[in-house]
Amino acid sequence: MPDSQSLTFRVGLIQTTSGADAGVNIERHVELVREAARRGAQIVCLQEMYRSPYFCREEDASLFDWAETVPGPSTEAFSRIAREHSLVIVVPIFEKRATGLYHNSAVILDADGSTLGLYRKMHIPEDPLFYEKFYFTPGDLGFRTFDTRYGRIATLICWDQWYPEGARLAALGGANILFYPTAIGWHPYEKDSHGASQRSAWQTIQRSHAIANGIYVAAANRVGFEGPPGNGLEFWGSSFVSDPFGVVIAEAGTDKEEILVAECSTARIEEVRRGWPFLRDRRIDAYSPIVNRWLA
Amino acid sequence: MPDSQSLTFRVGLIQTTSGADAGVNIERHVELVREAARRGAQIVCLQEMYRSPYFCREEDASLFDWAETVPGPSTEAFSRIAREHSLVIVVPIFEKRATGLYHNSAVILDADGSTLGLYRKMHIPEDPLFYEKFYFTPGDLGFRTFDTRYGRIATLICWDQWYPEGARLAALGGANILFYPTAIGWHPYEKDSHGASQRSAWQTIQRSHAIANGIYVAAANRVGFEGPPGNGLEFWGSSFVSDPFGVVIAEAGTDKEEILVAECSTARIEEVRRGWPFLRDRRIDAYSPIVNRWLA
Repeated sequence: MPDSQSLTFRVGLIQTTSGADAGVNIERHVELVREAARRGAQIVCLQEMYRSPYFCREEDASLFDWAETVPGPSTEAFSRIAREHSLVIVVPIFEKRATGLYHNSAVILDADGSTLGLYRKMHIPEDPLFYEKFYFTPGDLGFRTFDTRYGRIATLICWDQWYPEGARLAALGGANILFYPTAIGWHPYEKDSHGASQRSAWQTIQRSHAIANGIYVAAANRVGFEGPPGNGLEFWGSSFVSDPFGVVIAEAGTDKEEILVAECSTARIEEVRRGWPFLRDRRIDAYSPIVNRWLA
Repeated sequence: MPDSQSLTFRVGLIQTTSGADAGVNIERHVELVREAARRGAQIVCLQEMYRSPYFCREEDASLFDWAETVPGPSTEAFSRIAREHSLVIVVPIFEKRATGLYHNSAVILDADGSTLGLYRKMHIPEDPLFYEKFYFTPGDLGFRTFDTRYGRIATLICWDQWYPEGARLAALGGANILFYPTAIGWHPYEKDSHGASQRSAWQTIQRSHAIANGIYVAAANRVGFEGPPGNGLEFWGSSFVSDPFGVVIAEAGTDKEEILVAECSTARIEEVRRGWPFLRDRRIDAYSPIVNRWLA
């Protein structure tokens, strides 16, 4: 039987620290992306807000200086790398859309260096040391997919990963893989009591999106400690790629810089969705109450 | 600060085999439910179609004889037990609704023996040895919750567990716990190659419902082998209870009859939903395309 539609693509995830100098952060990520390309990656995803520290640990209006426009320094630097190495790159940015209007976004660059489009983080957290609602207006572009040289992809960002609805909509849009650039870590005072269950929940919910939708899922998280010792964040790394059945096919450690490269294939998606065909049986006639805040 | 709303409830799950005699199956389950009550259970859930073998391994119209009405033998037997032991019981039945119209359902009995209502399985599988579309009309009651003596609960059934939408709607209805009576097992020819990843996917997707919604999830699965040696099903047991953060607090083995009893509390739900408040940030303005079959 014909299998003319089968496509293989290699994903690269960059897990690293980002320091206090934007230029250095760009340079270091450029080098890491080049290394991922040397290892065979075709679609590379950087961690959330790769160009800055995770500054949302406090509310400080001067930190809006970290924002950039599209096009801007990030798209300029990575468009060149994308073209040179024929890479698709998911570039998370702190987007300045207008004066006083900012988003937590990701630019999707195609393998010729062109900009395919933008995703703006839809779900914005607000939690001690994660004061994102102060900085980011919730996205207004919805859940999107992008046709790249290496197939259709989607990206969501960090807190989005806790929402099955977002993953579902990206998958229904025909993406083969869902990226989650991320900045998640432990509070020092919580790590002993809740650290293991937090990291487990984080991986579990993302593997579940792979399973429910028969789609690859790839999360690129930052690593290292930021902030004052007793009141900072220990980013837990653990970047990983899940296959469409929830099997983790590549996984980084919790405490050091790593580049993950994993091979994915639409043949595996085909196999999984034929085996347990969940998409066949969705009760679309019964899901409309999901747009309610609460139903009790 | 006041905590007058806090409620503790103990869940019992019955994992066993069901043989060829309906009367014996009822009797054996009655004994197991009594034992769960002795161990302190207040809300007990039986496995899917506890009163019969998993007959959907073949398509045979004579097997509709296994169906029963509501009220019928199951509600009669378990209403008495519910009243005697002050138990809430989730009783899965093969429901004969009318001549030629059948559902895969669950009756919810309150602790005084009264019938609180019915859930009818919304997502119906169809897979070699799981020929359920032949027997069961998809449910037409939607995703419901039930106010029992021990708090608000919801039940879904087996294949429903792969659909985040169902879990979400039950959770938005205010349930503290979501039950999944189940009959899932390995094909003998698949167990070596896919068995571990299948069981892992099954637990992962259900733990993810707990995490996404901050709700307890409890799955009661059957155990044992049914059918001819080379072409039967090995039900994998593994019944479990997940807390609202995805932590498995009770889990049965894969190969023998077990009664699981686990203590749950709304204080834990409160703690989890305050810690990582996912319900706060849902983008209900952006989810409506979820009622589409496909969006590409």
